[in-house]
Amino acid sequence: MALWINGKIVEPTESPLDPTDRGFTLGDGLFETMRYEGGSIRHLDRHMARLRLGAAVLGIELTWTEALITPAAEALARINQLDDGVVRLTLTRGPGMRGLLPPPQPKPTLVLTLQPMQAPMIPACVTISPVTRRNEFSPLSAIKSLNYLDAILARIEARSRGFDDVILLNTQNRVAESSVSSVFAVIDGVLCTPPQQEGALPGVARGLVIEQLNPQICPISLADFARATQVVFTNALGLRAVAKIEGVDLIVGEAYTQIKDALEVRSIPK
Amino acid sequence: MALWINGKIVEPTESPLDPTDRGFTLGDGLFETMRYEGGSIRHLDRHMARLRLGAAVLGIELTWTEALITPAAEALARINQLDDGVVRLTLTRGPGMRGLLPPPQPKPTLVLTLQPMQAPMIPACVTISPVTRRNEFSPLSAIKSLNYLDAILARIEARSRGFDDVILLNTQNRVAESSVSSVFAVIDGVLCTPPQQEGALPGVARGLVIEQLNPQICPISLADFARATQVVFTNALGLRAVAKIEGVDLIVGEAYTQIKDALEVRSIPK
Repeated sequence: MALWINGKIVEPTESPLDPTDRGFTLGDGLFETMRYEGGSIRHLDRHMARLRLGAAVLGIELTWTEALITPAAEALARINQLDDGVVRLTLTRGPGMRGLLPPPQPKPTLVLTLQPMQAPMIPACVTISPVTRRNEFSPLSAIKSLNYLDAILARIEARSRGFDDVILLNTQNRVAESSVSSVFAVIDGVLCTPPQQEGALPGVARGLVIEQLNPQICPISLADFARATQVVFTNALGLRAVAKIEGVDLIVGEAYTQIKDALEVRSIPK
Repeated sequence: MALWINGKIVEPTESPLDPTDRGFTLGDGLFETMRYEGGSIRHLDRHMARLRLGAAVLGIELTWTEALITPAAEALARINQLDDGVVRLTLTRGPGMRGLLPPPQPKPTLVLTLQPMQAPMIPACVTISPVTRRNEFSPLSAIKSLNYLDAILARIEARSRGFDDVILLNTQNRVAESSVSSVFAVIDGVLCTPPQQEGALPGVARGLVIEQLNPQICPISLADFARATQVVFTNALGLRAVAKIEGVDLIVGEAYTQIKDALEVRSIPK
């Protein structure tokens, strides 16, 4: 699978990726996962806005613009013979010597890959992670950084118990998000989602749903969440209904349909 | 600066590092920073024990042993013409397709670099980070993972205000560690350090100091910390005295000398 690094299409085996890249050594970078279809990237403007915000938080200079990303995705589609798929954009602070402080003149790294979309997925059976928590005190909760190990650990543990996905609580034991998605829940008949300050990543799909459906944005305690009758996960690749949380059945109902319409997606991707 | 990847010495420009390596894409890995001098790595057994523990937490198979690491460091010293320095070992889960779940048969990546030691450093002027917190609820607080962005953000912000290093509090507003070191403080005449459950990484130097000086291992609130008369930072490269915290003078005194003796180091490395 060929990929794009700093303006060049390369095979992974001939990668010019420097092992001193701070993305590799320290997780010092950001990423975006985007839907590529019909020759364009869905909501590229929103993804780039979030990337710019994250780059500002980390102090990484972002000189690449939308005008470069779409042709790069097209080139990857051509060379990898894919009509559509998932573009992953990775931006790092670039190579550096040992130590936490960045080099005086960082040269950021940008990598794009295009991979096939996965098959539509059935409604998820979900657990609440006993393994780790989202840190709502960290600015990383508000940006899509490369520091993804908490979500990985939670997901691996959940899978070991047979679950499809996992909900992460914050340090106050309130709902933050799933390992890969934003969480919407119908509680006492009202569509709700946690605010960013609770450790919820400002997801692109989450933003679209909020703008169109005007849900209540409020902290969700475990007691609140236990009263949820419908739960829907969203991310930039689409939405997923939740069938069960900790074995308790939920309805796949009106909230799912409304959110699906809001996102204008036809399938149920991962 | 040549480096060692999966058994081969290579130049960074001819790196076989795959851009789909999960260390690069998700921070899915671990590292150790070790002192190389006189042809051997100080406390290699302790570093490898911590690495094995971290690998077990992440579920990464670690087949490399001490017997391989020392010759690799020697080869790097020879080719890079360094008599001593700092070995950085990076272990990742290896390449993978998009998504959080690891591939069925991961092929872990191991990278070693050897870089010069930095010059001895004067006692540090330190601040307490207003930017972020250690997440003591996460298993990542107990292992040396690649997810280092919280410490990077805290350090960059502290430097922007003229400080040499920065103390990270946990989510309960208690002392966890500095951006690169364990923290020892003399409070009410007693040498103290926070326990691991407070978000303190089980540092190799910290372990040596605990074994030899038997400090009180106890949570340190901001009120406790304000009464500290001496503060010393330790990491695998040595120790550093703290001259001031938030502008308030401390003594560089007996605790520094005791910890220095416990670590048997002659200089004050970074």
